[in-house]
Amino acid sequence: MKAISRAAIIAVGSELLTPSKQDTNSLFITDRLNGLGIDVAAKAIVGDDRDELVHLLAATLARVDLVVLSGGLGPTDDDVTREAVAIALDRPLAEDERITAHLRARFAARGFTMPMPENNRRQAMVPAGARVIENTRGSAPGLWIDHDDRVVLLLPGPPRELKPMLTALTDGSLRERASGAPIVRRLVRVAGRIESQVDEVLGPLYKEWAARTPPVAATILATPGSIELHLSTRHPSVADVSLARAVDEAVAAIGADAYSTDGRLLEEIVGDLLVERGLRIGVSESCTGGLITSRLTDVPGSSRYVDASIVTYSNQSKSDLLGVAADLIETHGAVSEPVAVAMADGIRARAPADVGVGVTGIAGPSGGTPEKPVGTVVIAATTTSERRVRTFRFFGERAQVKFQAGQSALDMVRRLLLGRR
Amino acid sequence: MKAISRAAIIAVGSELLTPSKQDTNSLFITDRLNGLGIDVAAKAIVGDDRDELVHLLAATLARVDLVVLSGGLGPTDDDVTREAVAIALDRPLAEDERITAHLRARFAARGFTMPMPENNRRQAMVPAGARVIENTRGSAPGLWIDHDDRVVLLLPGPPRELKPMLTALTDGSLRERASGAPIVRRLVRVAGRIESQVDEVLGPLYKEWAARTPPVAATILATPGSIELHLSTRHPSVADVSLARAVDEAVAAIGADAYSTDGRLLEEIVGDLLVERGLRIGVSESCTGGLITSRLTDVPGSSRYVDASIVTYSNQSKSDLLGVAADLIETHGAVSEPVAVAMADGIRARAPADVGVGVTGIAGPSGGTPEKPVGTVVIAATTTSERRVRTFRFFGERAQVKFQAGQSALDMVRRLLLGRR
Repeated sequence: MKAISRAAIIAVGSELLTPSKQDTNSLFITDRLNGLGIDVAAKAIVGDDRDELVHLLAATLARVDLVVLSGGLGPTDDDVTREAVAIALDRPLAEDERITAHLRARFAARGFTMPMPENNRRQAMVPAGARVIENTRGSAPGLWIDHDDRVVLLLPGPPRELKPMLTALTDGSLRERASGAPIVRRLVRVAGRIESQVDEVLGPLYKEWAARTPPVAATILATPGSIELHLSTRHPSVADVSLARAVDEAVAAIGADAYSTDGRLLEEIVGDLLVERGLRIGVSESCTGGLITSRLTDVPGSSRYVDASIVTYSNQSKSDLLGVAADLIETHGAVSEPVAVAMADGIRARAPADVGVGVTGIAGPSGGTPEKPVGTVVIAATTTSERRVRTFRFFGERAQVKFQAGQSALDMVRRLLLGRR
Repeated sequence: MKAISRAAIIAVGSELLTPSKQDTNSLFITDRLNGLGIDVAAKAIVGDDRDELVHLLAATLARVDLVVLSGGLGPTDDDVTREAVAIALDRPLAEDERITAHLRARFAARGFTMPMPENNRRQAMVPAGARVIENTRGSAPGLWIDHDDRVVLLLPGPPRELKPMLTALTDGSLRERASGAPIVRRLVRVAGRIESQVDEVLGPLYKEWAARTPPVAATILATPGSIELHLSTRHPSVADVSLARAVDEAVAAIGADAYSTDGRLLEEIVGDLLVERGLRIGVSESCTGGLITSRLTDVPGSSRYVDASIVTYSNQSKSDLLGVAADLIETHGAVSEPVAVAMADGIRARAPADVGVGVTGIAGPSGGTPEKPVGTVVIAATTTSERRVRTFRFFGERAQVKFQAGQSALDMVRRLLLGRR
């Protein structure tokens, strides 16, 4: 059997050819394949169009060792992947009775009183010679087809179904067939700087890294509220050491703004610091509307350090629910440093929180004034012994302002917990 | 000259084949082409690999009227698009002296004292017969090539350069060549059903729609917590009427589960219903951790109906901040219908809210029991005159459970406000 070193990824679905939808599965698939040393030579997206997919598959198969298809495995007439693969590989479709039985059992287990729609049996049609890959999270099974020394892999489109299925393969059958040295990556996340600032600081390091044996490749990526430095190399025996050295050098150059070197998000970093210190956090949210607490509680185990938060959109509620003095709001305005501090102190007084956070601002699109334009957000973080407060000015639309405010609030808590500025 | 009705989009750049970068130009390009009635039949992404691109271009060109390439027009050896196009179309490259002069002038104007690197002259190499498209924001000119009744378009990769160049073309040369009517789209969003149920209900309509003049195309898409029905047609004079009729038919078939027919999200629908009725909402969130209120406040103008919400993660806070009786929690458990109702009533008693929502559940990955497994979520919505409560069982990871719980809570409020079940 031929070893697999080059792959192509094909996403199937007409919605992926509209102006509003994007294929994201291919990023996850690429990550997993690269981890086995398999290069992705090309990606493609086609609609729910059997002939188009047959043509693309035929043109692709000749140039790679592995084709990963995602989507088009549902029960409807639109779902053409099984049929297109059967045609392109000249392997007739036949119903796999075990899949049909499994589908019926699954349907019954979900408590529907009506019988399974006959349409769903389409999902049991399998090209000759295909091996079924179990899908524990959905009805569409995956398929693995060995074809002329190449592999064609069919996976369902929903990411929550595709991800565990591909992971099982990259831990098993695909790992056995993969050749080449894995691409190893590290990620440094940076808060509080813009892309060109990070770029400037790292400029001299880029050249050093590129000249090393093995070379370390660096890419800077600006994401909302965070700059990401992606480092990669692919020499198996020394990759981890080379990358660890480069990460250390980057962090030394960037300083306290580099908040994560292991893929953890800011809410995870803050959560881990709270656990380490045995502290609990409470958030008084105005313009962020609950987003910060939602992000904190996205982290499994966050009930160890999140007890309660209060969202107060009106001035009245800031007074009633957080005890912010009405004259403080009248004197300084709801979007002001004294009010943010009073909100942070207020949640600490009302919930069992050691760290209190107060966020008040103007998310837009309306509500701005010449002195306090849209995007103005005041953030405070307080404990019994320390108080930090800062006025930010964020750019972008409402969602971006909310996200950046949350990012800056979490970063303020991180620095406070680390005793850094 | 042949009219253009089908296009393919090819993005060139090795960084677009890594796990962290995505081609976004194609969404913009699709939007503009669809606006001229040009269908996008396929999209592809290749690295900075000349042979791969030559192959892809040859395979693509036969199937469409227009190929739009983005990227790979820079001055370095990595930039292979010009050369690959020259090979694929068999049109030799030659230096366009006007471009070279323009590049030298541009270089000098930027204040560099050294002469332009010779490498940059690569950007002046043009396949025979190409027409130059001016780039006012960067050094790489675009190219338009008429080839055997087809058009091949080369545009630079940076979005801020590509966008104005493509816009000029869709307002000019491309508009003149486009055939067919602009694609018009409508979207119906459905809550509380799974994909195959919606599909079954709509089955007879699909056939009717496809047989109409003009035909209405329908695609079903399952997104977390929502099923989307995408309808499109393309006959200019009657498109709006045909689509409106199809939307009405779909809604009649689906019933109250169809919650949006105009692109509005569930949080917008609920917000608009609250505004119409002059009501305010408050949410007591346990397992959703603030996500519901964050979604409600993603909508501009939501301060008209969101006043305050309270996130209570612990039992103690449910009692202290929402007045949920401790013995209620002890008797029924924190995840129970009586507690959810008490949370909904509790926020109404403490904030100026006419509609109270209570959400309590087990988001996972731990915390489940045999009677109340991970994914169990109880949702209550109450007013002074009405009380609705229901126990759900959601599947998926923590984030999916949170999102579906939010979706179901908002949908419960929507139905309550509409007086429907």
